[in-house]
Amino acid sequence: MSVTDAAVPEEVTPDLSETGADDTVDRELLVDNLRYTLDGRWRETRQYARRNMDRVDLLPDPTLTMQESRDRTFEHIRELGKLDFAAAGFRTEHGGTGDVGASITAIEMLGYADLSLMVKAGVQWGLFGGAIENLGTQRHHDKYVKPLIDLDLLGCFAMTEKGHGSNVQALETVATYDRETDEFVVHSTTPSATKDYIGGAAQHATLATVFAQLVTAGPGQEPEDHGVHCFVVPIRDDNHEPMPGVTIGDDGPKGGLAGVDNGRLSFDHVRIPRENLLNKYADVDDDGSYHSPIDNPNRRFFTMLGTLIRGRVSVAATAGAAGRKALAIATHYGLERRQFEAPDSDSEIVIMDYLAHQRKLLPLIAKSYALAFAQNEVVEELHEVQTAKPEDTEGDDSMAGRQRELESAAAGLKAMTTWHASHAINVCREACGGNGYLDENQLSIMRGDIDVFTTFEGDNTVLTQLVAKELLSAYAEDVRGLNTVGWARFIADMARDVILEKSAARQVVQTLLDSSGEDPEESELSNRATQVRLFRNREDHLLRTCANRLRRATAEDADAFAVFNNAQDHLLKVGHAHMERVVLEAFIEGIENCDSKAAADLLGTVCDLFVYSALEDDLDWFLMHRHVSVERAKAIRRGVNELCKELRPHAQTLVDAFGVPEALLTVAMEG
Amino acid sequence: MSVTDAAVPEEVTPDLSETGADDTVDRELLVDNLRYTLDGRWRETRQYARRNMDRVDLLPDPTLTMQESRDRTFEHIRELGKLDFAAAGFRTEHGGTGDVGASITAIEMLGYADLSLMVKAGVQWGLFGGAIENLGTQRHHDKYVKPLIDLDLLGCFAMTEKGHGSNVQALETVATYDRETDEFVVHSTTPSATKDYIGGAAQHATLATVFAQLVTAGPGQEPEDHGVHCFVVPIRDDNHEPMPGVTIGDDGPKGGLAGVDNGRLSFDHVRIPRENLLNKYADVDDDGSYHSPIDNPNRRFFTMLGTLIRGRVSVAATAGAAGRKALAIATHYGLERRQFEAPDSDSEIVIMDYLAHQRKLLPLIAKSYALAFAQNEVVEELHEVQTAKPEDTEGDDSMAGRQRELESAAAGLKAMTTWHASHAINVCREACGGNGYLDENQLSIMRGDIDVFTTFEGDNTVLTQLVAKELLSAYAEDVRGLNTVGWARFIADMARDVILEKSAARQVVQTLLDSSGEDPEESELSNRATQVRLFRNREDHLLRTCANRLRRATAEDADAFAVFNNAQDHLLKVGHAHMERVVLEAFIEGIENCDSKAAADLLGTVCDLFVYSALEDDLDWFLMHRHVSVERAKAIRRGVNELCKELRPHAQTLVDAFGVPEALLTVAMEG
Repeated sequence: MSVTDAAVPEEVTPDLSETGADDTVDRELLVDNLRYTLDGRWRETRQYARRNMDRVDLLPDPTLTMQESRDRTFEHIRELGKLDFAAAGFRTEHGGTGDVGASITAIEMLGYADLSLMVKAGVQWGLFGGAIENLGTQRHHDKYVKPLIDLDLLGCFAMTEKGHGSNVQALETVATYDRETDEFVVHSTTPSATKDYIGGAAQHATLATVFAQLVTAGPGQEPEDHGVHCFVVPIRDDNHEPMPGVTIGDDGPKGGLAGVDNGRLSFDHVRIPRENLLNKYADVDDDGSYHSPIDNPNRRFFTMLGTLIRGRVSVAATAGAAGRKALAIATHYGLERRQFEAPDSDSEIVIMDYLAHQRKLLPLIAKSYALAFAQNEVVEELHEVQTAKPEDTEGDDSMAGRQRELESAAAGLKAMTTWHASHAINVCREACGGNGYLDENQLSIMRGDIDVFTTFEGDNTVLTQLVAKELLSAYAEDVRGLNTVGWARFIADMARDVILEKSAARQVVQTLLDSSGEDPEESELSNRATQVRLFRNREDHLLRTCANRLRRATAEDADAFAVFNNAQDHLLKVGHAHMERVVLEAFIEGIENCDSKAAADLLGTVCDLFVYSALEDDLDWFLMHRHVSVERAKAIRRGVNELCKELRPHAQTLVDAFGVPEALLTVAMEG
Repeated sequence: MSVTDAAVPEEVTPDLSETGADDTVDRELLVDNLRYTLDGRWRETRQYARRNMDRVDLLPDPTLTMQESRDRTFEHIRELGKLDFAAAGFRTEHGGTGDVGASITAIEMLGYADLSLMVKAGVQWGLFGGAIENLGTQRHHDKYVKPLIDLDLLGCFAMTEKGHGSNVQALETVATYDRETDEFVVHSTTPSATKDYIGGAAQHATLATVFAQLVTAGPGQEPEDHGVHCFVVPIRDDNHEPMPGVTIGDDGPKGGLAGVDNGRLSFDHVRIPRENLLNKYADVDDDGSYHSPIDNPNRRFFTMLGTLIRGRVSVAATAGAAGRKALAIATHYGLERRQFEAPDSDSEIVIMDYLAHQRKLLPLIAKSYALAFAQNEVVEELHEVQTAKPEDTEGDDSMAGRQRELESAAAGLKAMTTWHASHAINVCREACGGNGYLDENQLSIMRGDIDVFTTFEGDNTVLTQLVAKELLSAYAEDVRGLNTVGWARFIADMARDVILEKSAARQVVQTLLDSSGEDPEESELSNRATQVRLFRNREDHLLRTCANRLRRATAEDADAFAVFNNAQDHLLKVGHAHMERVVLEAFIEGIENCDSKAAADLLGTVCDLFVYSALEDDLDWFLMHRHVSVERAKAIRRGVNELCKELRPHAQTLVDAFGVPEALLTVAMEG
């Protein structure tokens, strides 16, 4: 496997503007260099995927029935199984190849083909496999990892219930230990305890990793609820019939993801061996006594959940890919399609030449670049954290902090990217007019498929709030799990310094900041340090003022919930502002790491458009809080237009650099 | 038919806040009074529709194949045919009952059931029927109107081509008069001349109203292109096979509207009798000579198009209905669903109690109210204009002006309402989490169905621009049809006064303005006159500055297209600002006409939320142009939160008043 086709030579690409000799060759080199940069550390995985996925038959087929779509996705995942995509997600000692980053990157690449296929793969190897891998111990690894990689064992991930999605700690499924038989009895205690939306449950899965309240009584003790734990529960027998006590339902047709068999599971006193508890973080002895290396139940719960972060990261990565693909399709069309006469000409105007059209697509392309760099960083950090050898990190307190910040970054980026992708695909559909609505042009299918990405793996509003809460509590231990009031009181008691302390910058950003003046209003808006300062100052301002508001919750007569609730929009804004700053800084670092001058220059302009658009979207805040003057605000608006004009000639280059396999961009429409 | 259940008694409903006696009864009365107000002039039609449409079997069935969906929609439209919905759209002398307003209202009500059904009905009776009715003469009315009302004749409306959607004047289908045979020869001159997205073409229609360039040579003359005209072209024979020379394609699966058989038509020298020209505005004699009462080809074209406005109005009306239905479904769910523990309580918090959830749904509900009042006004004006007897308006110059302003209002409201509906349904889907994604809960189906409403009957961006252009040219005759440069030059030559002159207010608004001070910054923001002034001042400011920018196009060395293009975002903003002002004023008039004090008070608060949200969405503009101070801007943000809190207890009432038939709100999900 080689990536020479994208390798950056020592002598970097000449700047396009400096050469008139052979623009075509230069453009191709520029595309290669951009793609190389954008591909990040797992570029070999991407290239491998591109070579193997450049097949039009991988695209969703809208003429199939739901059942046919499910069957076809199932066939495709079996083919994928042969490509060694899956083993990367599992440690070598468990039977995998131990390359977490590659496994997520491979799943992301499926987003260029078919989101149903990605979800199906994500459920099997990421969620179900991830639970076995990260919550189980050797007995589970030995038994399940190899067969699940090879698809000899098909599983599903049964966490969400009808009654509880965001509030996982309140799940109503209960697994009670029965000392007599040395079994857990898994039971859906209410109708709302029914597991729902479970990918794979409706048809293919034979095993489920079921999240349930663990109840057990130690010797001579009363039964006690130890909180949510994960259990391996067989749901279908050898004839693929539901196991005794297991009721399986089908969620039926959905807004998209036709190839995914989402279903419902409920349990009527289903007995499983004690060994089926995934017992890495807690175990029950045969006498019923419960023990865990983590004493605090909240911390234990969130530690377990934290190991499952891969699902969230994969969803964000894939949404990013889907958004880029839609933008590539719409941009190609916008560069071909003509409408209304050009002045002094017989031909009509290419619609991408209209400012309104540029304003629709180019800022979204810029944001896609920004998010891709941020995503690459999260995947890299996730890889580092999850592949660190226990013996190397033992006693290393920083690992817990890194895990915590990683979870927050993953949550924030998931919300930001899935909202962006859903919005971008919607805009792209509309930008292709009636053509966009025909399934033969893909965008309408993608629009339906992407929709639920804003919901699954964490509702975006809840996740954005989570990011803000983590920031406000400075990632303090033992805050999570507190209810709203408890949390508000905690924040109120914290010193302001703790919050601001978190703003230490990465090296490249610190250097930028050090080399420029302090006052953002004095310097050029195109100055990168000024841009960073605007983003950082906004975040700090919001954090400080939000903390102040929440502090009121401690007042003697305060209704703590009301204080929290009144500040909820403020809190969400903290999350947005934080993530936008994080993404900008990742973009800057990405450009810093680009060795091609021409590519870096173009990325610089793309970064400018990302910044100007973000500022424009939040201009009222910047004006209201006097972080920009009226004159500067007007310059920002003008700047977006000017940057659109500047990037217009590079539109094709920018979307080509996404590296979506040609066959997967197949559409019927022509300009 | 009676509407006593919603009638407002002389002695109006007591204000809810003043009574503690029997809140339940009062709430129902309040709902009735709100609905009565919102229902507008054609409330009897609405009530009739409600009684006949309260059937769960009218909802789309997502388990059907595309073919089954089409068949089912076809069955439903046959049932509708029996309800006398259709005849209202046609003049009594043509065989109808001549109630244009009722016909549009009836079609709008279908939006509560199934958007496929609405589109199918809209194509048959509104577009195809509308073309016959409004562009044809007695020979066409006699032959087609009765059978098309009764569905003995099924038609389609073949305007859009692959190559031309927005730019209808550039259609490439040509109808050439052949004197030898006294026929028109209809021909698709290029592949891009293929008619596309034509509802009904793929399967059901036997006749098409085809828009084509009319080419004819008068005696001793060269053939001349007289521009786009409409022709009746049989596309299927008695065996339902394509007519000779007609090629019919199927657009296949789409992003939604599964029950509509969209297709493609191309013509290979298809011959039709000369009489098949819909000849109200132009005719060709048997010697090939062309004559029209309207000399100017542009004016003729836009006059013909203008008579087809009903389609655009119906689409806006239906989108409004779909948005309201989605908000009713999401609000019901939000009032039942609980998540996360309430402080000092065992139960969880109703999600509608979260500020973030209120902020998602309540401003959209407020905007739905605002748009509904504006829509009612447009329907009323359309009814008046289209039912005016020719003998009463002969020589009445104001009719042309009314028609022109009506077209602009219809275009603007179509863009505003369909964008609103698409956005609202998307938000509602997300607000219902995983449940929202299951077709059994309707929202995901609606999300797919509504999408193309932003495109068909005029791309929203193009329509918004049209509104602005009309304003800037003060609805001057003969401006339409000018290309971009010609138009920009026209604007440049106009005096500023002509533009501002258009801002004369309706009586109720003028009274408001007269009774308050001049300076919006000095008065209370809750003051209605202040609100109107903010909206009007924004519009005037944008209009004036946009005109100034466009004036640069006349400079000696100016690139007129570049001048126009650089101002395109400004131009679109003019359109938005204008429409928002028009909608606000319609809301104010709607409240003025509400005889129930309790209902009017509640509507007043809803109107406040509409205003505050609109101001919040555009706060950067108001700040940048110093139309509001920083302090006022902060008050606006706070105001949205406060109004959400104030309206939270009325959420159920507000959506009940939409009057969506109970059966059509059927969903599987429970809170």
